[in-house]
Amino acid sequence: MKEFFPEVKGKIAYEGPRTKNPLAFRYYDSERLVAGKTMREQLKFAVCYWHTLKGNGSDPFGAPVYNRPWGQETNALEAADSTMRAAFEFIQKLGVDYYCFHDRDIAPDGATLSETHSNFEKLVNRAAALQKDTGVKLLWGTAGLATHPRYTHGAASNPDPLVIAHAASQVKRTLEATVALGGTSFVFWGGREGYSSLLNTRLKQERDQLGAFYHMAVEHGKKAGFKGMYFIEPKPAEPSTHQYDFDAATSLQFLSEYDLLDHFMLNIEANHATLAKHTFEHELMMASSVGKLGSLDINRGNTILGWDTDQFPTDVPTATMAMWIILKQGGLPYGGLNFDAKVRRGSFDSMDLFYGHIGGMDAFARGLLIADRLISDGVLEKFQSERYAEFESEMGHKILNRTTSLDELEKYALSRGEAHFRSGREELLENVLNDYIYSPTIE
Amino acid sequence: MKEFFPEVKGKIAYEGPRTKNPLAFRYYDSERLVAGKTMREQLKFAVCYWHTLKGNGSDPFGAPVYNRPWGQETNALEAADSTMRAAFEFIQKLGVDYYCFHDRDIAPDGATLSETHSNFEKLVNRAAALQKDTGVKLLWGTAGLATHPRYTHGAASNPDPLVIAHAASQVKRTLEATVALGGTSFVFWGGREGYSSLLNTRLKQERDQLGAFYHMAVEHGKKAGFKGMYFIEPKPAEPSTHQYDFDAATSLQFLSEYDLLDHFMLNIEANHATLAKHTFEHELMMASSVGKLGSLDINRGNTILGWDTDQFPTDVPTATMAMWIILKQGGLPYGGLNFDAKVRRGSFDSMDLFYGHIGGMDAFARGLLIADRLISDGVLEKFQSERYAEFESEMGHKILNRTTSLDELEKYALSRGEAHFRSGREELLENVLNDYIYSPTIE
Amino acid sequence: MKEFFPEVKGKIAYEGPRTKNPLAFRYYDSERLVAGKTMREQLKFAVCYWHTLKGNGSDPFGAPVYNRPWGQETNALEAADSTMRAAFEFIQKLGVDYYCFHDRDIAPDGATLSETHSNFEKLVNRAAALQKDTGVKLLWGTAGLATHPRYTHGAASNPDPLVIAHAASQVKRTLEATVALGGTSFVFWGGREGYSSLLNTRLKQERDQLGAFYHMAVEHGKKAGFKGMYFIEPKPAEPSTHQYDFDAATSLQFLSEYDLLDHFMLNIEANHATLAKHTFEHELMMASSVGKLGSLDINRGNTILGWDTDQFPTDVPTATMAMWIILKQGGLPYGGLNFDAKVRRGSFDSMDLFYGHIGGMDAFARGLLIADRLISDGVLEKFQSERYAEFESEMGHKILNRTTSLDELEKYALSRGEAHFRSGREELLENVLNDYIYSPTIE
Amino acid sequence: MKEFFPEVKGKIAYEGPRTKNPLAFRYYDSERLVAGKTMREQLKFAVCYWHTLKGNGSDPFGAPVYNRPWGQETNALEAADSTMRAAFEFIQKLGVDYYCFHDRDIAPDGATLSETHSNFEKLVNRAAALQKDTGVKLLWGTAGLATHPRYTHGAASNPDPLVIAHAASQVKRTLEATVALGGTSFVFWGGREGYSSLLNTRLKQERDQLGAFYHMAVEHGKKAGFKGMYFIEPKPAEPSTHQYDFDAATSLQFLSEYDLLDHFMLNIEANHATLAKHTFEHELMMASSVGKLGSLDINRGNTILGWDTDQFPTDVPTATMAMWIILKQGGLPYGGLNFDAKVRRGSFDSMDLFYGHIGGMDAFARGLLIADRLISDGVLEKFQSERYAEFESEMGHKILNRTTSLDELEKYALSRGEAHFRSGREELLENVLNDYIYSPTIE
Repeated sequence: MKEFFPEVKGKIAYEGPRTKNPLAFRYYDSERLVAGKTMREQLKFAVCYWHTLKGNGSDPFGAPVYNRPWGQETNALEAADSTMRAAFEFIQKLGVDYYCFHDRDIAPDGATLSETHSNFEKLVNRAAALQKDTGVKLLWGTAGLATHPRYTHGAASNPDPLVIAHAASQVKRTLEATVALGGTSFVFWGGREGYSSLLNTRLKQERDQLGAFYHMAVEHGKKAGFKGMYFIEPKPAEPSTHQYDFDAATSLQFLSEYDLLDHFMLNIEANHATLAKHTFEHELMMASSVGKLGSLDINRGNTILGWDTDQFPTDVPTATMAMWIILKQGGLPYGGLNFDAKVRRGSFDSMDLFYGHIGGMDAFARGLLIADRLISDGVLEKFQSERYAEFESEMGHKILNRTTSLDELEKYALSRGEAHFRSGREELLENVLNDYIYSPTIE
Repeated sequence: MKEFFPEVKGKIAYEGPRTKNPLAFRYYDSERLVAGKTMREQLKFAVCYWHTLKGNGSDPFGAPVYNRPWGQETNALEAADSTMRAAFEFIQKLGVDYYCFHDRDIAPDGATLSETHSNFEKLVNRAAALQKDTGVKLLWGTAGLATHPRYTHGAASNPDPLVIAHAASQVKRTLEATVALGGTSFVFWGGREGYSSLLNTRLKQERDQLGAFYHMAVEHGKKAGFKGMYFIEPKPAEPSTHQYDFDAATSLQFLSEYDLLDHFMLNIEANHATLAKHTFEHELMMASSVGKLGSLDINRGNTILGWDTDQFPTDVPTATMAMWIILKQGGLPYGGLNFDAKVRRGSFDSMDLFYGHIGGMDAFARGLLIADRLISDGVLEKFQSERYAEFESEMGHKILNRTTSLDELEKYALSRGEAHFRSGREELLENVLNDYIYSPTIE
Repeated sequence: MKEFFPEVKGKIAYEGPRTKNPLAFRYYDSERLVAGKTMREQLKFAVCYWHTLKGNGSDPFGAPVYNRPWGQETNALEAADSTMRAAFEFIQKLGVDYYCFHDRDIAPDGATLSETHSNFEKLVNRAAALQKDTGVKLLWGTAGLATHPRYTHGAASNPDPLVIAHAASQVKRTLEATVALGGTSFVFWGGREGYSSLLNTRLKQERDQLGAFYHMAVEHGKKAGFKGMYFIEPKPAEPSTHQYDFDAATSLQFLSEYDLLDHFMLNIEANHATLAKHTFEHELMMASSVGKLGSLDINRGNTILGWDTDQFPTDVPTATMAMWIILKQGGLPYGGLNFDAKVRRGSFDSMDLFYGHIGGMDAFARGLLIADRLISDGVLEKFQSERYAEFESEMGHKILNRTTSLDELEKYALSRGEAHFRSGREELLENVLNDYIYSPTIE
Repeated sequence: MKEFFPEVKGKIAYEGPRTKNPLAFRYYDSERLVAGKTMREQLKFAVCYWHTLKGNGSDPFGAPVYNRPWGQETNALEAADSTMRAAFEFIQKLGVDYYCFHDRDIAPDGATLSETHSNFEKLVNRAAALQKDTGVKLLWGTAGLATHPRYTHGAASNPDPLVIAHAASQVKRTLEATVALGGTSFVFWGGREGYSSLLNTRLKQERDQLGAFYHMAVEHGKKAGFKGMYFIEPKPAEPSTHQYDFDAATSLQFLSEYDLLDHFMLNIEANHATLAKHTFEHELMMASSVGKLGSLDINRGNTILGWDTDQFPTDVPTATMAMWIILKQGGLPYGGLNFDAKVRRGSFDSMDLFYGHIGGMDAFARGLLIADRLISDGVLEKFQSERYAEFESEMGHKILNRTTSLDELEKYALSRGEAHFRSGREELLENVLNDYIYSPTIE
């Protein structure tokens, strides 16, 4: 059997932060126990098929650049097969447990919809066999409803029911494949579910269509035996100018308006958060605070650029805050940490894929170690308890229980006079956080 | 009685688009009938007290610059009184029917909360008398919960119940004043309801506090005889880093989560929309599409700057889209068009206040005329009907009624084959819109 | 001969602002005299080959969508030939005098560099013949140094001299072709001349390389008989993260540092200006104020999106300011108004190309009419003369002539006391500008 | 003598990264040798008077909040005196060697310009005495030309020569004070040197005025015995809409156009860099690459906000890159690291000033240690040498020496064929950088 990454012999090993080996982990030590679970359980990393296997390095001003040793066969199914073998070799060598895919990443379109279905079925079977052989698992599936020209004006929100029917067929088949492959969740990223100009758009109708479509997916999932969770992945724009799932709060509003909250959680992506003028941790906390943080697309954007750069996540402070939020909510039962990240156009070499993932895994592993220590020391929690201490008073309880009134509160203000000014201590807390982040005792 | 704007004799008059008089209207002709109502009914303009009367031209790097002939008395109540007289003179000369205020705009803080209440009561009585004399009306009231140092860490979302009690007192009094002065709505802009750092913040609790606070306001409104509507005014940030009412969708999510949708609509501001990476018309349409567009803060931001510039709205295309959305929803029964706009720091002269408002009123008046003609010609509606025509088919109805399934839709796709590609015609529609905007027959 | 746009019979005609014909001009009346020249002389519009003929509607998340009747031949040279015929048919029917191209737009790469040269030569000859037949002229040529994978790490700024040699060959051939086809200028847009990370980049050396490359181009131009002007086209980023020609001022700094100011002017693009946090008019005025405004790429960006959307320019106020600056500097002897604009992905139909260009031409034609009237009325100039009137004083002259000193100025301040505060009158001037923009007497 | 910071006894001490003491340094160890100098020599920190002593916590929506124990005297000169005593106490306790000020920070405006001069003279004398007593030094002075209403339409670029005369007087006196107090540089930050609207602005004349003004300053400096360096501090906007010194390249262009390059270098601020859509390290490298990196304003912006937040610099990776550039250029002979940073509005307590500075000093101290090790290991340099190795070839030299031609390069391309594709290795280098940043052996 052809080996696609012969430079990597066996699995990438943990060697600790003093190693000089670029093909080793400094922090990710899969069986190490942190906060009561192994690192591999706390950090359910997933390799993403589209960037890692199918990315070609093109950009809006540049032709494809990568010359990968897989997927070059002239027969489309054979090319899909070699790509899948490369995927599993990569995932195994990296030592990751999960992967994620779109239907169209793993199987080519056929000349007809039936042939497309047949292609997909073949590759799903292939994936099932490889999963069995390797122990690698599917984290989630998703239908690719952005690339094909027919989806230019929307998939579920398209003005033409026939386009919606094609989208429905894709979601149906991918959902069934997700069941077959044991995926614990199913993601909707609505890249084309939005609009470019109100001059030609019925915003209300299109949102109604999208709501109806999600309901149909949920109904079909029941029939198909899907026991997992549905996720919306918010993004403000790109490719659409105005995307209906702008950010976490907008997606929650949509789920609420269309009575879908029981079936859905959110898959939050770092780069989408920053494009929406939020921080990653804001979006994570927003979702978590209402019990809807389901999964993460881990990557990093470039704050001086206005588009999705999907860089590998090497920023330890951000990873720390993410893991802090995840640990505090007790983990991600339905989701994990999907590497929705790609190497730069100029990283021509397949080995760069390893460097990207290793750096990202180490950043999150160090983040996990830091977050665990932050929580076990209770340093932020203690500060917050003191800061909100007055809410333990009778009036504090009355406010939160909604058993007081403006009249009563006014009387309270009149009797107590001016409030005491208490520093929020941001500078001090930032220093404390840095103490943990750069602690020489975290290895 | 001292006259504050002696350069303006009587009311600003309509003189048509060929006039050279800078103190005349080109399009705003208050009694002209458009779409079945007079312009003054369609365009319920309000002068805003804070910018127009109280603005001093300061900025983060600059001291106050304006030297107004009002509000200079050393006695604070006398200064408040002269300011109010200047306000009513300005509003009358401009020929506008409404104004809006914060409690702290019209009356000074006293040494104690009781004295503050007493000051406010005096000025509310003064306003009542001036309203009666002049026929000017209050559009909405709002409590100023951003400026005072005690609100630095939030008003309703403050970690200290005593701060909330002060905020409660302000809302109580301002709501009662709004009833007394006949205001049809009450606005919450949560400039300090947000956070700067998650290190010191309990996001969930703070949002709970805010939800509880709004409920208390609604309850108090019932007692106080308030028959109007409550509005949230979304803004993404500034002064807070992360504001809980980021945009229209976020605010709607909040209202839904805290079961407040029955009592609230939205007050959408142009500059807040663009700071949140939306267009003004997106936010208006989003709110309108769920029946929640209550009122507008009309101004204009500067897209190359990252803060609220609150410039006067002179952009006719934007005004056109705004009026198109308003006309299509049948007007703004509870709200109007509040000039949340200020002259530039370098516009030192009180007459600049007139130029700013006149330009803004004319932009919206021309926008109204264009929108009315667009609607009566039905040009966009006809295009949209054709674009979504397939939704008149059986399958279209089934999708919107949620009476089909992924299975059935897949069969439909298999039987019909590929969809027909239909241009969205954005370029053509933009040309059509320009035909209306620059039409020489719109005067 | 195959006709590619059979829906358009003959040339698009001027029909005035009251026409309902979408395939007619409302303002562009080619032979109409404005400010002493015909509109066709004042508005040297150019059709751009890359977007209009070669654009396929793809985006970072979407496959090509357009199915054009040209360029589909399996033989690459035949496809190039039909594309060129379509180009000249389009240009003629639109009634435009100029076009612009990259070498690789008009001719395909061959298997070897020699074959590539031979392909290019054939198509240049074809273009020469078609120019002769039709009277259409080349405005400027440019070498396509962004798309090919070899340019990923830069063209002239690449770490490998062999890549630079390929770029040199392209510039040499394209410059010679520009001479052969009578182009009056040659453009450098350095999309790949920048960097992504300082970790792997020698910024100083790369800028030195770029400076050396431009000098070689100038030397070659002399040998090749090029009498025109070289232009740098600034852009802040995309595809590069940091582009060496960020904006007008940065490009001028570069030209100055590398002693190239005698040979170069700037080609300013609207969308690049806004991506650099400027306005289009700022960049135009900056270039014009130092005598370096050479040409314009007319399009429009979307201020809520962070990438180059290259929309057709339909914004009349912006076109007005652009034409005001151009008229005041006496025109663009070396350049013109190049439509670096593309129809939206969803504008599938070839006719949309006509709508886009017609709307853009009319916006600039109306802008020209308004700018001409603004200048002939001298309204802004009069205001500015009054505003800067004190510079006609002795002290004003001394400052500008640098014949005074801090000491003397301090004495002046001590003797005169505080300055008088004079309003900048922005609100009034915005109203005045709107009077002209929406004037019913401009047709 | 009143003590303003009684909570801090003596100097803040170095205690190493394992300390829990919030009032101790983890990395800043003033006498430790790094790269051949002590940390205090490598890191010439300066406390900035305006934020640290004069900041009141106000923002555009909020009144002043801090209640400092200094500067409260009703007599303005006494208030200035207590403020200066607080400054020197703070600087000494922090253990920093330098400070920076604007003229108006240290001395109040008088009723007349003469009185203003007299006030300033008194406080300069006071500063001289305190410097002598404490050993604290002035890093640089600057004139406050942004705050006073007279500068609303510009200081040197004002339409009124009388305003320029006032600015001249301020620069004259501050320059003389800088000489008297031994400052090694003088900064121009042109917050009002820009424009808001082209409708009322002569951009060229205003830039001419600014150039003339800088020449007068240089001439006066010669007379006044100033041996130091002048700095421009670029900023894109705020308070002006368009600032003439947008970024490093724009400022260099200005200095070049007005023949000022011999006398000026740049003072680069982190937050200004990011507001201009650059990174801090881009601006530093741009300035350094042309020998013009003179000094740094160290702080940090918030990438989701569009204004100058001036937060304390706690980001170690950014500090590392800054120190890497500074070490490689051999230090900052004329400048240093000025804390142009302020505590958050909600950090009410004077102790927060210590936390902010300590965190910032430690971030830069750790950055220095990392940068030193990066350089001594030569890890980035080795990679770059390999990457640009082909420039050691004959053709490489010819390109950089400008002794080749397009013709010769084309022949080279024809003979060599396609270039080899070499990965830029960004992902690998980012991992390497993280190895250094989080190295447990850096203490």
